[in-house]
Amino acid sequence: MADYAEMKSRFDGLKAEGLKLNMMRGKPETKQVALSIPMLSLITQREDMVRNGVDAANYGELAGMPEARRFFADILGCREEQVFVGGNASLTLMYDTVAKAFTHGLLHSSSPWAKQEGLKFLCPVPGYDRHFRITESFGFELISVPMDEIGPDMDMVEELIKDPKVKGMWNVPKYSNPAGIIYSEETVRRIASMKPAAEDFLLMWDNAYCVHEFDGDYVEMPDILSLCEKYGNADMVFEFASTSKVTFPGAGISCFACSEANMAYMKKLLGVQMISADKMNQLRHVLFLKDKENTIAHMKKHAVIMKPKFDMVCDMLDREIAPEGIATWTRPKGGYFVCVRTKPGLAKRTVELCKEAGVAVTPAGATHPYGIDPDDSVIRIAPSFPPIDELEKAMEVFCVCLKLAAAEKNV
Amino acid sequence: MADYAEMKSRFDGLKAEGLKLNMMRGKPETKQVALSIPMLSLITQREDMVRNGVDAANYGELAGMPEARRFFADILGCREEQVFVGGNASLTLMYDTVAKAFTHGLLHSSSPWAKQEGLKFLCPVPGYDRHFRITESFGFELISVPMDEIGPDMDMVEELIKDPKVKGMWNVPKYSNPAGIIYSEETVRRIASMKPAAEDFLLMWDNAYCVHEFDGDYVEMPDILSLCEKYGNADMVFEFASTSKVTFPGAGISCFACSEANMAYMKKLLGVQMISADKMNQLRHVLFLKDKENTIAHMKKHAVIMKPKFDMVCDMLDREIAPEGIATWTRPKGGYFVCVRTKPGLAKRTVELCKEAGVAVTPAGATHPYGIDPDDSVIRIAPSFPPIDELEKAMEVFCVCLKLAAAEKNV
Repeated sequence: MADYAEMKSRFDGLKAEGLKLNMMRGKPETKQVALSIPMLSLITQREDMVRNGVDAANYGELAGMPEARRFFADILGCREEQVFVGGNASLTLMYDTVAKAFTHGLLHSSSPWAKQEGLKFLCPVPGYDRHFRITESFGFELISVPMDEIGPDMDMVEELIKDPKVKGMWNVPKYSNPAGIIYSEETVRRIASMKPAAEDFLLMWDNAYCVHEFDGDYVEMPDILSLCEKYGNADMVFEFASTSKVTFPGAGISCFACSEANMAYMKKLLGVQMISADKMNQLRHVLFLKDKENTIAHMKKHAVIMKPKFDMVCDMLDREIAPEGIATWTRPKGGYFVCVRTKPGLAKRTVELCKEAGVAVTPAGATHPYGIDPDDSVIRIAPSFPPIDELEKAMEVFCVCLKLAAAEKNV
Repeated sequence: MADYAEMKSRFDGLKAEGLKLNMMRGKPETKQVALSIPMLSLITQREDMVRNGVDAANYGELAGMPEARRFFADILGCREEQVFVGGNASLTLMYDTVAKAFTHGLLHSSSPWAKQEGLKFLCPVPGYDRHFRITESFGFELISVPMDEIGPDMDMVEELIKDPKVKGMWNVPKYSNPAGIIYSEETVRRIASMKPAAEDFLLMWDNAYCVHEFDGDYVEMPDILSLCEKYGNADMVFEFASTSKVTFPGAGISCFACSEANMAYMKKLLGVQMISADKMNQLRHVLFLKDKENTIAHMKKHAVIMKPKFDMVCDMLDREIAPEGIATWTRPKGGYFVCVRTKPGLAKRTVELCKEAGVAVTPAGATHPYGIDPDDSVIRIAPSFPPIDELEKAMEVFCVCLKLAAAEKNV
């Protein structure tokens, strides 16, 4: 165990430096943003904005530019007709899907969820705070399901979905936020073949990191739509993706994908809410990213910036924390996070100490429903935004704080 | 009255031409879209996308680029802090406002509207079909309120709002869709000073045509936010605007404006749904349109394209229809529509005949709740999209069809 006095003195020294560093959110750094600047010059005249008779600048095409639908279908391995292209945020599309279930009901709902009481939603943990907050905001009871390195505990899920009040489940199947794991083929198959008691069970499949390898080759995932279809669950799943971490985080394009029956149903509802999302930005993206192959090539440029940061974070944890035996972590090959699991009771204090020393880390608990991690042990590290020298300093602070927290508690 | 046989023969002749013309939607024509093409070259490098430390390309700034908030505040005459800048459609912001009332309740709601029964919404007629459809989709009972040339019948409104189930009211105060009228100062004052029984009454103020004069000078309107504030109704109103008919119909920017108390409340809810709308497009717009003065100057270029079309439509109605005494119409100085009021019972048949002759007109009834015009007399003409020669042909067809419909019915 690290010596308290030594750690306290190192901590005080770091604190005295008056740092202001941030490892809080999965935010691409400026160099990554710059990779997509050429995209901004692709539509500058009238000829550029009309494709196959569709005017990207004018009204129309509720489900988006046909080229953009094809693009996402290529990325996700589904059919063009199953894709609805949205605006700059898949988060908004996810929120809206839940909101539609609430206000109008889904395709197989007997009544809108607003008219039903005591609804529950499954939340694999550790997970994405913004997912959990959506369902919390709509008043669902959030049920934690533990995850391991191949995905959520499916025995538990299969048991929980026998309750008809359990209306859905969040998932980040590839490079999950924050654990960085990839659901195994067997996990995905078990999910696609679930038999939930709720006739309108909503499988939220946030494929946020579908092409986001930074270490090694692209990893193929099964197309969840056809897999669900195969098991008689075609209408159970809504899949989401975006280019937020491919092009511009605040100005990318997004999509949801679902069965044709769901698409027909959702288009009827969405046609009341919108005429179409910004098709000009959709077209700009397709002109730039072209197709899956070219997008994967583009992601290699992100990888060049991302990999050294993740290596540095994990190497420092290996060097500074592993010998202490006070935490474990994943070494992900894609996504945006390193997930540190401390011995119980250390996460909050570590984050607090980091803050005191001028390093912002995602609040402990954020990875769990209601922001409460019962073991107080999960810390999400987001290495992407700071330049690598700042990140190194931030990680130095983090390791000292974690060791100091352990020494304080004598663990 | 026009001679049936003569009209039938003219109709058959026109029908035989196999026309395919469209006066259906308020869609800017291609020349108008082209006016904003220079905007697309304003952000093409890294320096362009960072303003006062805010990176338009990255995450953050829930309420939008500060410059864009200021821009809309200038246009609407309200304060920057009262503006939330959205994506490409004010329609979506309007839908979301109603949806939030439904799922979470508004600032002064005792409970979410989803938990309340028998809710009603006031719909000045003739009005905008997409407005009515939003409230219809949420299950409100829609109550028609007749409009004249100074706005909705306020005696009737003041009576109706004594019912606490009446939760709100749609408005297009300037160049109303489709009547083209401007609410009088007195009407606006009476609206701002209403005392609705519902504590969470939602005044929907769709200022869609706030700078959309095509004939004559810019017409100033009172700032509805400060007027409501003056009468103790600060939190009653949500105002909406967009650049859909200023720059690109499918790729503009939009906003809502409301009291600071409403803003704080809505930001808490919207922060669950989104990180921000597309700030890059917001910045692009501000760089191009700059401010209110420059935007009004830009709208003069639209006017040059729009005015001859409206003149032609109204002149032809004057020439062809006025002598028959079978309809009246407005001659608006802004907005997107000419509203024709036929003698009762002629609207549907006229639109049907137009369709038969290859001219698409907004379905009769679309201007009324549930698509039902009890007098069957209102037809909305949208002259903007077709080039003027096509429009002239379409109007020739329209006039023949209206006269034929009248002759058929012997009115």
